[in-house]
Amino acid sequence: MTFDFTPFLRTDLPNPAAPWNGFPEFNFVGGNNDEQSVPVAALRQAADAVLSREGSTLGTYGLHSGPLGYRPLRDFLVGKLKRHAGITCTADNILLTSGSLQAIDLINGVLLSPGDTVIVEESNYGGVLSRLAERGVTMVTIPVDEDGMRTDILESELSRLKTSGVTPKYIYSIPSIHNPTGTILTEDRRRRVIALAQQFAVPVFEDECYSDLIWSGERPPALRALDESGLVIHVGSFSKSIAPALRVGYIVADWPILAQILATKADAGSGALEQMVLAEFCTAHFDSHVAALNRTLEAKLDTLIEALNENFGTAADFQRPKGGIFLWVRLPENVDTTRLAVVAAKAGIAVNPGAEWSLGSDATRWIRICFASPTQEQLQAGIARLAEVCHGEFGVPEVSANVARA
Amino acid sequence: MTFDFTPFLRTDLPNPAAPWNGFPEFNFVGGNNDEQSVPVAALRQAADAVLSREGSTLGTYGLHSGPLGYRPLRDFLVGKLKRHAGITCTADNILLTSGSLQAIDLINGVLLSPGDTVIVEESNYGGVLSRLAERGVTMVTIPVDEDGMRTDILESELSRLKTSGVTPKYIYSIPSIHNPTGTILTEDRRRRVIALAQQFAVPVFEDECYSDLIWSGERPPALRALDESGLVIHVGSFSKSIAPALRVGYIVADWPILAQILATKADAGSGALEQMVLAEFCTAHFDSHVAALNRTLEAKLDTLIEALNENFGTAADFQRPKGGIFLWVRLPENVDTTRLAVVAAKAGIAVNPGAEWSLGSDATRWIRICFASPTQEQLQAGIARLAEVCHGEFGVPEVSANVARA
Repeated sequence: MTFDFTPFLRTDLPNPAAPWNGFPEFNFVGGNNDEQSVPVAALRQAADAVLSREGSTLGTYGLHSGPLGYRPLRDFLVGKLKRHAGITCTADNILLTSGSLQAIDLINGVLLSPGDTVIVEESNYGGVLSRLAERGVTMVTIPVDEDGMRTDILESELSRLKTSGVTPKYIYSIPSIHNPTGTILTEDRRRRVIALAQQFAVPVFEDECYSDLIWSGERPPALRALDESGLVIHVGSFSKSIAPALRVGYIVADWPILAQILATKADAGSGALEQMVLAEFCTAHFDSHVAALNRTLEAKLDTLIEALNENFGTAADFQRPKGGIFLWVRLPENVDTTRLAVVAAKAGIAVNPGAEWSLGSDATRWIRICFASPTQEQLQAGIARLAEVCHGEFGVPEVSANVARA
Repeated sequence: MTFDFTPFLRTDLPNPAAPWNGFPEFNFVGGNNDEQSVPVAALRQAADAVLSREGSTLGTYGLHSGPLGYRPLRDFLVGKLKRHAGITCTADNILLTSGSLQAIDLINGVLLSPGDTVIVEESNYGGVLSRLAERGVTMVTIPVDEDGMRTDILESELSRLKTSGVTPKYIYSIPSIHNPTGTILTEDRRRRVIALAQQFAVPVFEDECYSDLIWSGERPPALRALDESGLVIHVGSFSKSIAPALRVGYIVADWPILAQILATKADAGSGALEQMVLAEFCTAHFDSHVAALNRTLEAKLDTLIEALNENFGTAADFQRPKGGIFLWVRLPENVDTTRLAVVAAKAGIAVNPGAEWSLGSDATRWIRICFASPTQEQLQAGIARLAEVCHGEFGVPEVSANVARA
């Protein structure tokens, strides 16, 4: 007789997880990275050096650095954020977290109650949309074009909300390599976002986890760098630039709000060994590693685009992103990408349907294709198969890959 | 002008954190361990071996093991739990977490709603008491004696609740090296807890994070080992047996409830490098490491007890624990340990006041003294100073340490 937990469960839970059966043959979802680009040799050296020097400090929660996290990694970030993003801060303005997802949860945890309103980009990171929905907040959406968030619409929405007596809890933005469009908010628009946030006295929640992966290396100043009043809470991560299975992210904020966030971080600290190894590695190798990684990622993007052009022709509409690990692709009007994702999964292909990644009215025409983790060969063969599956289900692309190649 | 986040904050938050100013001179709180016992050389070897062999898999969330965590560490646990605790399970019954605190939060997250009732040991881990209070649940308390939880009172409380129409969500217990009393629930009582849980159809939440630290090495079978119906959810950790700054804990449960818990673990996996290094280390060295650690800890306990006897005499009342890292000490009736903790902190001594670690009516007579992290010298000097502080504030012990030694 097996004990039945059902009557003991909360009534507002997600469905139980399905057993994990390994990866699909063509895995075009998730923030996974190019495994060959993981800097294994340098990480080995870093681990050996830092453990040899101060491994015994693992005997103490938080090492000898206190609850904000390993001090040398925060010191590295002070320099990196100044150099790359124009952010001026001290180590005491940085809280290391278990990935940027914990950072997001902590920030939402101190700011959001059910019924609150937030402003978000219309197409968005699925994990943020689902989190906000779970917290029962109202999302006001701002469209994104090739220059990032439409600040003219941001202004009109802020005005409309003010007239209605609603103060949004924050404006959430992924300004650099926006997820899923891959666009970069221009510097002019960044200044406009900050001016509006100051004018309407609304905090900004800046999520910059992809900002290292810009092919040109030219990253505009962070929103946090353009405001001196401290209304911007900035979040970053090492997942995308070093390795996603290392769960290290961070929050940059002024002390009063950071102290409030820290008080709710009741986990006895985030993983210290990962922080130690990252600090040791990044101090020596961050910039050169990221430059090489970007060349690899851009080559994979080119392969993906070539495969889409070859197999989908004009049926696949997209803008070449300026960096990152995903491509946001629009398919013809009669394609329901929620349905496409289901039939593709049966054919061994995982893609993100647009409905999980956008609140826009045309969400079900879009798919997100992650290109960092698959090999060049998997990108070519997987997109060819996706075209066949899509043709079989929806009749588009009109000429399937096999026919086109015949 | 600094932006004021106050109007944007939730109204139910804890007080903001204070800036961290380093450790007190005598740090007798927290689960910190003996730094000299951290197996640095073997951890270096483990890190190098596992990174060399499979470091590139860090490029994928969850490595190649899926969302339950690094498979070789789960495989190690299958063997370890059988060998040490009598638990029969497979790797698919184990979810690796970011320390046992995340395990506790995940379990509470699927089971508890405000207004629910849980059964807990009267003296208890402060972090659990505060978490349950935050969730707005009613705690029914069971006293602990030298053999662990009083199962006769457990039975009467279960009967009383049943008569009142209340089904508790679980019976929470730390059966091996109970926190803070250091007692071990006897095997007879373990069988009684399981029989009562089955009879009343109430789940058991077993928290075994100290169970490796039993001086004799004789660990009774886990509660999970004594029940075949799956009503026990078992939690463990590597924090206390290897190093607390490594944030790796685990949940053992039947798949239906584990799948429900896993569905709410929205963190993209716990830190993988720590899991990899632990798996490599533990497979070769776990038992020998823990045996040596226990000898070191027992020697520190002896020093602490000697210092208490010398400085407090009969004013300090305690039972020598059979393992662990803390001693639970009762002081004379006129001592308010909440006040003592404040004045001790001013003198550079950190201790846990009983009110944070017990719901009993005499909670403010107790203090918890953690002895794993301080050196032998710090234990001696710190207890002497604590006796002086206590004498200065409360007049007990009647003869202070300096006078006694004069």
